[in-house]
Amino acid sequence: MAKQWKEEIKMASDIIKPKILKGFRDNLPSLEAVRKKTITILEKSFTRYGFLPIDTPVLEYTEVLLGKGGGETDKQVYRFLDHGERDVSMRFDLTVPFARYMAQHRTELYLPFKRYHIGKVWRGENTQRGRFREFMQCDFDIVGVDSISSDFEILLLMKTALEDLGLHKFTIHLSNREFFNSFLQHLALGDCGVEILRTIDKVAKIGEEKVTELLGATVSKDAADTIMAFIRMEEDWATTLHKCEELAGGPSEQSNYIRTLFSYIEELGMSEFYTFNPSITRGLDYYTGVVFETFLTDYYEIGSVCSGGRYNNLASLYTKEELPGVGASIGLDRLLAALEHLNIEIQTEGTVTVLILCLDENLVPHYHKLAETLRNEEISCEVYPTKRKLAQQFQFAEKKGIPYALICGEDEYEAQKINIKELTTRISYDSITLSEAITILKARN
Amino acid sequence: MAKQWKEEIKMASDIIKPKILKGFRDNLPSLEAVRKKTITILEKSFTRYGFLPIDTPVLEYTEVLLGKGGGETDKQVYRFLDHGERDVSMRFDLTVPFARYMAQHRTELYLPFKRYHIGKVWRGENTQRGRFREFMQCDFDIVGVDSISSDFEILLLMKTALEDLGLHKFTIHLSNREFFNSFLQHLALGDCGVEILRTIDKVAKIGEEKVTELLGATVSKDAADTIMAFIRMEEDWATTLHKCEELAGGPSEQSNYIRTLFSYIEELGMSEFYTFNPSITRGLDYYTGVVFETFLTDYYEIGSVCSGGRYNNLASLYTKEELPGVGASIGLDRLLAALEHLNIEIQTEGTVTVLILCLDENLVPHYHKLAETLRNEEISCEVYPTKRKLAQQFQFAEKKGIPYALICGEDEYEAQKINIKELTTRISYDSITLSEAITILKARN
Repeated sequence: MAKQWKEEIKMASDIIKPKILKGFRDNLPSLEAVRKKTITILEKSFTRYGFLPIDTPVLEYTEVLLGKGGGETDKQVYRFLDHGERDVSMRFDLTVPFARYMAQHRTELYLPFKRYHIGKVWRGENTQRGRFREFMQCDFDIVGVDSISSDFEILLLMKTALEDLGLHKFTIHLSNREFFNSFLQHLALGDCGVEILRTIDKVAKIGEEKVTELLGATVSKDAADTIMAFIRMEEDWATTLHKCEELAGGPSEQSNYIRTLFSYIEELGMSEFYTFNPSITRGLDYYTGVVFETFLTDYYEIGSVCSGGRYNNLASLYTKEELPGVGASIGLDRLLAALEHLNIEIQTEGTVTVLILCLDENLVPHYHKLAETLRNEEISCEVYPTKRKLAQQFQFAEKKGIPYALICGEDEYEAQKINIKELTTRISYDSITLSEAITILKARN
Repeated sequence: MAKQWKEEIKMASDIIKPKILKGFRDNLPSLEAVRKKTITILEKSFTRYGFLPIDTPVLEYTEVLLGKGGGETDKQVYRFLDHGERDVSMRFDLTVPFARYMAQHRTELYLPFKRYHIGKVWRGENTQRGRFREFMQCDFDIVGVDSISSDFEILLLMKTALEDLGLHKFTIHLSNREFFNSFLQHLALGDCGVEILRTIDKVAKIGEEKVTELLGATVSKDAADTIMAFIRMEEDWATTLHKCEELAGGPSEQSNYIRTLFSYIEELGMSEFYTFNPSITRGLDYYTGVVFETFLTDYYEIGSVCSGGRYNNLASLYTKEELPGVGASIGLDRLLAALEHLNIEIQTEGTVTVLILCLDENLVPHYHKLAETLRNEEISCEVYPTKRKLAQQFQFAEKKGIPYALICGEDEYEAQKINIKELTTRISYDSITLSEAITILKARN
């Protein structure tokens, strides 16, 4: 008896607790089916606009991903020495690998090159702020051309992609980083531009008052007020732009760019989805032209679900060839959270239509034959794998959300008939042929 | 001048060479589109059989992935300390994370649980043997039931999945690990089972003669000959099985299992796709019942494209609950290589149908309006983003494989007409309306 006890304790201590790392997640089938379908919908949107898929490795040389710098992001990167003592890192976004990819494959690609890339990225961020350490990004870019037409195409695609997912109440806030810079130069504040951008970027989070106060540490009270006046949105894009032009010393190439962009938007009758918001600067990012963020009308708090802008030199770290481009990134996990919050249902295809019950072990091959016939008619089904009480088999169907049961015992087998039962309504179709069943099931599909 | 030189040298040395790690790959759009489509086809096959998708993290606690052991695989695992000094590893297969997942989420799931999982895994393998360090696996399993019906369902799905991909000439070689074990016990060789399995597993690679020789190091000459006789395939499954039964001391539960399985296969009229091959043992894997490998008739050399078997205890590392199951794994990269070798084309949907040429910068919003109308009709198209020579725009269409150009200058714009040109045939449809164009383009789709 004592021996058995010891054995059991030993066994128990041999068990490894099944757990995952903080900031990482398992997806149960219900969520994973939605995620997969969301991705499929986005891919269809991208394809309709001529964007092509690419893929890059998850692991890269650290030097390639981080360059020679040592910024804030760097500390969050999962970095280690591999078996060959190479300094390697897991990708922390899809932009840097794309820059490397463009430089490396330049001769195999033609410009303008339009790609999308959907994949996981990793950052060892503080999880206390509800951040995840493994998350999905979805980027789409047009590289090799600097034109307002490409900028506009990205803005159009952003709208289409969200609409394709069933979102119809959102606003894309856009501005021009260069316009803001020229305004700062007009105020002779070009030197503290970085500091000012960093502060302005917080306005959505901490409010105007606090930002004005913070700005006071860098610039004069007057300058702070002027900056705040510049970034404030007026009743429509034209009024805001007019005010900004006055504060920036008159119309400029940059302000005219915004005017042209909105004339396009108006010509396509899409004004309700876009607004000029001069407070959008995208912080310290590498943008050089248009910048944008997208907010959901009924779930503003979740933050921007799709952001991006124009950069004039994507791959400067890897090549001397200039590669201007424009692109946007969808935070897929945030988007999924938003869809759930807004009760917008993504219809998945992953549900099984028929469970073939197992009444008689001798009929197992017959059950599989029936299943194959149904599948050939594009009706998804499965055979309950072993003979159990019928109640248990019905319960399984209910748990898995399978709407129909196909019942065939020895008598039915001999008469070449089957029974179909709809589980929610409890309606039965008894002693019908398989082709009659197919007609019923297809009508329901 | 000297200064400029220095500047240039400095700049050149600042450039980081764009390169990727050995054993890792970038996917260009053509390949990535095929890979995506292949996955979509497989997902549809899985769904038709009632399998549901799941996802797990790429990074896990090393203890969870490797247990307490220190096998061959362990050395190949990408393992490091994260920011919190946790010992973490990148997943090296999809089976171990699935075992952990089943133990951890047991109460949220119902049995039998049928899942598929398609994702990348990483192994720091020797790349000299043409192996990759990052590759895609595609696993499907039925867990929570030990029945011949589930085994058969997996075998059916393997066949369907390959057929759905356009493969029609292949053979699934199957055997029963327990049958082989009982045969060894009959020879009183149970003790050197592991050693014998390891040797037998090499027969496809090094040939019968060499294997017989190697076996001689472990067992007597007579025993080696008997083992070789046992694993040899005869003209059909029945003859092979009969011979094996004689060598194993008569029919047994295990040999009858194979007989039943083949009776199912025959009842479904699928004999040409399955064969009993007693040399299939799946080496040192954890299988306890049926084991199988799949070979392509016209590309045998590439090895098994889909393998697996039955295990009696998936998650024993993490829970005391027994979770028997059966599953298979498709090596997606190997499968793609095989499809290419066999000239089996996977039709991708990622091609763009129309390029709208840019003849006049003033018409840019009009071009985008035309594009939106086409896209609403599910015709994928893009606007050439800037005004360039027509030759250059046509060349772009050709490079991207876009079959149609839509041409609209100021005259057409005013007449509310367009021109469509089919680029390969050079057939033009001049001065037609957009809806006429849509009819033409849809007829072609």
